[in-house]
Amino acid sequence: MVIIMNPEATLENINGVIQAIENAGLEAKIMEGAQQKIVGVIGDKTKMVTVAIDALPGVDHSVSISKSYKLASREFHPQSTVINVAGVKIGGDEPVIMAGPCAVESLEQVLAAAEIVKKGGAQFLRGGAYKPRTSPYSFQGLEVEGLKYLAEAREKTGLKIITEVTTVEGIEPVAEYSDILQIGARNMQNFGLLKEVGKCGKPVMLKRGLAATIDEWLNAAEYIMNEGNPDVILCERGIRTYETYTRNTLDLSAVAAVKHLSHLPIIVDPSHGTGKWRMIKPMAFAAIACGADGLMMEVHPNPAKALSDGSQSLTAENYLELMDGVKKLSKFMREENLNPLTI
Amino acid sequence: MVIIMNPEATLENINGVIQAIENAGLEAKIMEGAQQKIVGVIGDKTKMVTVAIDALPGVDHSVSISKSYKLASREFHPQSTVINVAGVKIGGDEPVIMAGPCAVESLEQVLAAAEIVKKGGAQFLRGGAYKPRTSPYSFQGLEVEGLKYLAEAREKTGLKIITEVTTVEGIEPVAEYSDILQIGARNMQNFGLLKEVGKCGKPVMLKRGLAATIDEWLNAAEYIMNEGNPDVILCERGIRTYETYTRNTLDLSAVAAVKHLSHLPIIVDPSHGTGKWRMIKPMAFAAIACGADGLMMEVHPNPAKALSDGSQSLTAENYLELMDGVKKLSKFMREENLNPLTI
Amino acid sequence: MVIIMNPEATLENINGVIQAIENAGLEAKIMEGAQQKIVGVIGDKTKMVTVAIDALPGVDHSVSISKSYKLASREFHPQSTVINVAGVKIGGDEPVIMAGPCAVESLEQVLAAAEIVKKGGAQFLRGGAYKPRTSPYSFQGLEVEGLKYLAEAREKTGLKIITEVTTVEGIEPVAEYSDILQIGARNMQNFGLLKEVGKCGKPVMLKRGLAATIDEWLNAAEYIMNEGNPDVILCERGIRTYETYTRNTLDLSAVAAVKHLSHLPIIVDPSHGTGKWRMIKPMAFAAIACGADGLMMEVHPNPAKALSDGSQSLTAENYLELMDGVKKLSKFMREENLNPLTI
Amino acid sequence: MVIIMNPEATLENINGVIQAIENAGLEAKIMEGAQQKIVGVIGDKTKMVTVAIDALPGVDHSVSISKSYKLASREFHPQSTVINVAGVKIGGDEPVIMAGPCAVESLEQVLAAAEIVKKGGAQFLRGGAYKPRTSPYSFQGLEVEGLKYLAEAREKTGLKIITEVTTVEGIEPVAEYSDILQIGARNMQNFGLLKEVGKCGKPVMLKRGLAATIDEWLNAAEYIMNEGNPDVILCERGIRTYETYTRNTLDLSAVAAVKHLSHLPIIVDPSHGTGKWRMIKPMAFAAIACGADGLMMEVHPNPAKALSDGSQSLTAENYLELMDGVKKLSKFMREENLNPLTI
Repeated sequence: MVIIMNPEATLENINGVIQAIENAGLEAKIMEGAQQKIVGVIGDKTKMVTVAIDALPGVDHSVSISKSYKLASREFHPQSTVINVAGVKIGGDEPVIMAGPCAVESLEQVLAAAEIVKKGGAQFLRGGAYKPRTSPYSFQGLEVEGLKYLAEAREKTGLKIITEVTTVEGIEPVAEYSDILQIGARNMQNFGLLKEVGKCGKPVMLKRGLAATIDEWLNAAEYIMNEGNPDVILCERGIRTYETYTRNTLDLSAVAAVKHLSHLPIIVDPSHGTGKWRMIKPMAFAAIACGADGLMMEVHPNPAKALSDGSQSLTAENYLELMDGVKKLSKFMREENLNPLTI
Repeated sequence: MVIIMNPEATLENINGVIQAIENAGLEAKIMEGAQQKIVGVIGDKTKMVTVAIDALPGVDHSVSISKSYKLASREFHPQSTVINVAGVKIGGDEPVIMAGPCAVESLEQVLAAAEIVKKGGAQFLRGGAYKPRTSPYSFQGLEVEGLKYLAEAREKTGLKIITEVTTVEGIEPVAEYSDILQIGARNMQNFGLLKEVGKCGKPVMLKRGLAATIDEWLNAAEYIMNEGNPDVILCERGIRTYETYTRNTLDLSAVAAVKHLSHLPIIVDPSHGTGKWRMIKPMAFAAIACGADGLMMEVHPNPAKALSDGSQSLTAENYLELMDGVKKLSKFMREENLNPLTI
Repeated sequence: MVIIMNPEATLENINGVIQAIENAGLEAKIMEGAQQKIVGVIGDKTKMVTVAIDALPGVDHSVSISKSYKLASREFHPQSTVINVAGVKIGGDEPVIMAGPCAVESLEQVLAAAEIVKKGGAQFLRGGAYKPRTSPYSFQGLEVEGLKYLAEAREKTGLKIITEVTTVEGIEPVAEYSDILQIGARNMQNFGLLKEVGKCGKPVMLKRGLAATIDEWLNAAEYIMNEGNPDVILCERGIRTYETYTRNTLDLSAVAAVKHLSHLPIIVDPSHGTGKWRMIKPMAFAAIACGADGLMMEVHPNPAKALSDGSQSLTAENYLELMDGVKKLSKFMREENLNPLTI
Repeated sequence: MVIIMNPEATLENINGVIQAIENAGLEAKIMEGAQQKIVGVIGDKTKMVTVAIDALPGVDHSVSISKSYKLASREFHPQSTVINVAGVKIGGDEPVIMAGPCAVESLEQVLAAAEIVKKGGAQFLRGGAYKPRTSPYSFQGLEVEGLKYLAEAREKTGLKIITEVTTVEGIEPVAEYSDILQIGARNMQNFGLLKEVGKCGKPVMLKRGLAATIDEWLNAAEYIMNEGNPDVILCERGIRTYETYTRNTLDLSAVAAVKHLSHLPIIVDPSHGTGKWRMIKPMAFAAIACGADGLMMEVHPNPAKALSDGSQSLTAENYLELMDGVKKLSKFMREENLNPLTI
């Protein structure tokens, strides 16, 4: 941390800042600029939490320099993490594909979707049994019944399951039926939920919050890891901006940023990221090309009858064509050793 | 809902849209424009939830016209709601003031803060016992111990208590000790929590999410009200924008918007809204002038030693001066009948 | 400027950074942290422009500490500036009101508007003769003809004139007919135009850009002042955010921020700031209460027939009622010495 | 346009709206919903510009349905436009690469950069002779001298030139020396400049504004085209969001959006889009994969000594490696007929 003093700060002010730093068990260093004095803090940053340095007299502002997460950081863990989910490697050489309907609507729908998903070559079936919806009057999901349909689809197809958990009480059933627990964007800073999935013993996919910075996102991963769960997968799903043509603005640069700052795998969701089925293919190709570890996409046997998010779902035909391209692209990049990331 | 067809949509496409609308038990009306056909939907909008209209062939896009919340809307309930909390009226003629430290740190700190808060003329003492923090390594609150300190301060000063609840398990203890349960910005769309506080039998203050639209915010209030709790107070606390000088951008126009769209009372929090103690007074004055029903502010006996958010906390001196102004301004506006809002 | 080195930066890297700083004629100071080394730069920051410090090997990132504007800063000019425009003081004790139609449409319209504006007690008539419009097919303004109508209205009413200039060629005619030249939001970083109005010898009102930071805004003012024109008035008119209920998000905290960082006067435009006539009164009251030096508002004799922005224009009746409130509020605050700003 | 009436709108209100529409020479159609009446407008939308419909009594709000640009729209011109610049096709099968330093600093620097750029296989040399900078004290460019250096580099290498024009007076010299005129992000809505480059007879590359919507961007292109210049190339360069890790948020979904809405070619600039040299390669790969017509990138013979934007510039080595990958990727996609866009 670096503390910038006001130009008119007195010697007494500076001594006050130094004392506050030393009281917190840290060391202070002064740097005299042309117009302003700067005080640097040496030592474990987390101790500074007890000092409201900006409220001290003479302080203009302070700038944080080191990161507040550790377990999630590449500095702490230089090698990229590969998570093995029932035999499927996430973060390895090949991209992992998670596809399926936004919401589980019926057994028939899930089985029909699973067949398409499987045919395209995906490893995971997605589908929400608990749906966080803006309005209380929108379809909220089939809950445990929906989880059972997903499990039945796994039985039939061999696909692994990923599904969202929205409450602490939901962790047990979701962990029972699902291979990965998904934390949705609206719950990215539901810290109670993060702590509990940190104890559930299953891999967790953490979607980026609607307007979360990359720093906040990695700190949210830290909450899960800090409870003993190292198997965290990140998922970029678009951020909220002023642009209204797309539902969200898919931030593909987050893939490169996360790969630089963290060792955790990162998946991209172009369905939520754009909100338009027509944009899923170009964004899926782009995600693979920039180094994402996989894709999450919405596929529905009949998008026009979907109970939620139909306009951002692929038909079977579109999905199969997309998957054909994704597989070719990813194979070519591996074979040609085209590495987009220098880390 | 209005559905805009592509210029090249066929008759078959339009019939498909009409049929989808009719299958949902609604009526369709067609309007032929110069370039494009438009289909209007007549009937209860919530039925449209089962139709993914944008995914139908020939559809360009659709536009939602009516609101998805009802209990929270002024259309449904034209008169402004006044909530009586143990004798204090929120949403009435006089602004209600909620002040106190960001976090409860010790009994001494709470009592010292309460004395200042009381002296300034506030009706509520605020203070967090459960703190949602970006980093798992930051101070997370004293929990039930902190609640007891708040209750002791109420005993000593007669101030009412408002404090945040962050988990479903926390509802019982918070409801036991606090007069109002606060839902923080990060939990505005934690729908499981919203439903449960909807059943707790105590008034709830719902802070606007970090990047929530006004529409999403009122829908979140609807979740609480839909469980039988009509006593919801809204709180504007700043939204996330590209500007970095302030911690958030305080959206005071939300006061006028909420007063127009809803009958619920609205409080403004200039401490979180700006993140700078120096800006609390101007923004508090502005909030009163534009018709807010009250203020929530951070006051700390010693901001420089606060365990969180010290730089956005007022000292006793600053708080008392601010309160003097707020009381004069609000009294003048009442006496002169200066009504900022036409609703 | 403070330069944060990578944890794995070598001694050679650090020496490279020091040398780059010294080559630019500045002094470097090193601070050794627990995990990272930091290099501080002492001296005139503007010299650093020749060093792309972030591109040097071993550098993690750099943080700018001092401001890049000087003439516009309060540090450089502690006393608040009062600008005298043909006898009207902007930045003095009383708020200045600028009102009138969005666009000049006809002589009759301007004269009718001017009469209303005058009756309400405003000092300035506004009205666009050159209109920057999103679409080339929208009404672009009456140009010089429009300027003449404004001048005729001044003749008749004694009101001063403020109108927008959008091109370098437009400066001469606008400066001939208008008392203040307005630079619109879309031109805030049209640096060629800024430099030229810096030489025009008339006061300039600089609106904040659609998505400009306060820092960029003050730097834009610096462009004008640096050409020898000290008479710059700032105008907050709302910033672009994700919220769609309002046309823009009026950032009233910018008033407090500008008053702290700069000595220049600041006006608030609640018409463009909200885009809804219903919200102008509450935001006007709020602007006065938080210390703005004045207001700019759209008033139209017949808003429903306005050629642009009718939905954000006040009728005569609404304007007069608003002005009554603004005058009472501002008089009360002066008399009671209610100062919202500590600077 | 669709006009949504208030639930309490009277018959008189509705008649007022109908009359306003008919007065503008358009036709009105009424649709009676369950709660609200809706009025549709049939006819040429541009006529509605004279009616401030939202200001009419009884109107809740209005929704625009058709686009306000025409020449730039794919509806008007279904085939993708290919622009031939001195033999180089932009918008054709192969991506076009524009590379070079942010600013022209000296003849030596430009020639050194051009050699690297050429070696990598780019067709265009970029480099700013007129630099729009936030601070008036930053390096503003070598102006005509800089243009001559660029022309000399063209002479020596055969590369075409693209350089920015920032003022109307600058159009003549820039058009004399450069093959394409670039309009920078800050000038995207400098309508006077747009109109003049619309008459210059040379192709224009229009960068997306800092916080411009896709709709505003295409309308800005319309300004240029409406003056008779059909040769407009769009350039996505990142938009302003709340995220601070990257300088801007590169919106690659804009490529898919523009390809769907318009026939104009679109280039991606990952240097400005991310602000970090390390992220240029992944974002360049992603841009090619999602169907961009080319790339604009900053390359500097010695980034650490660049007078501007060094931290977002590639070294020769990084650039050559990136170009190798881009060429392989793009060749593979062409050969395999991997089309990311369905348009």
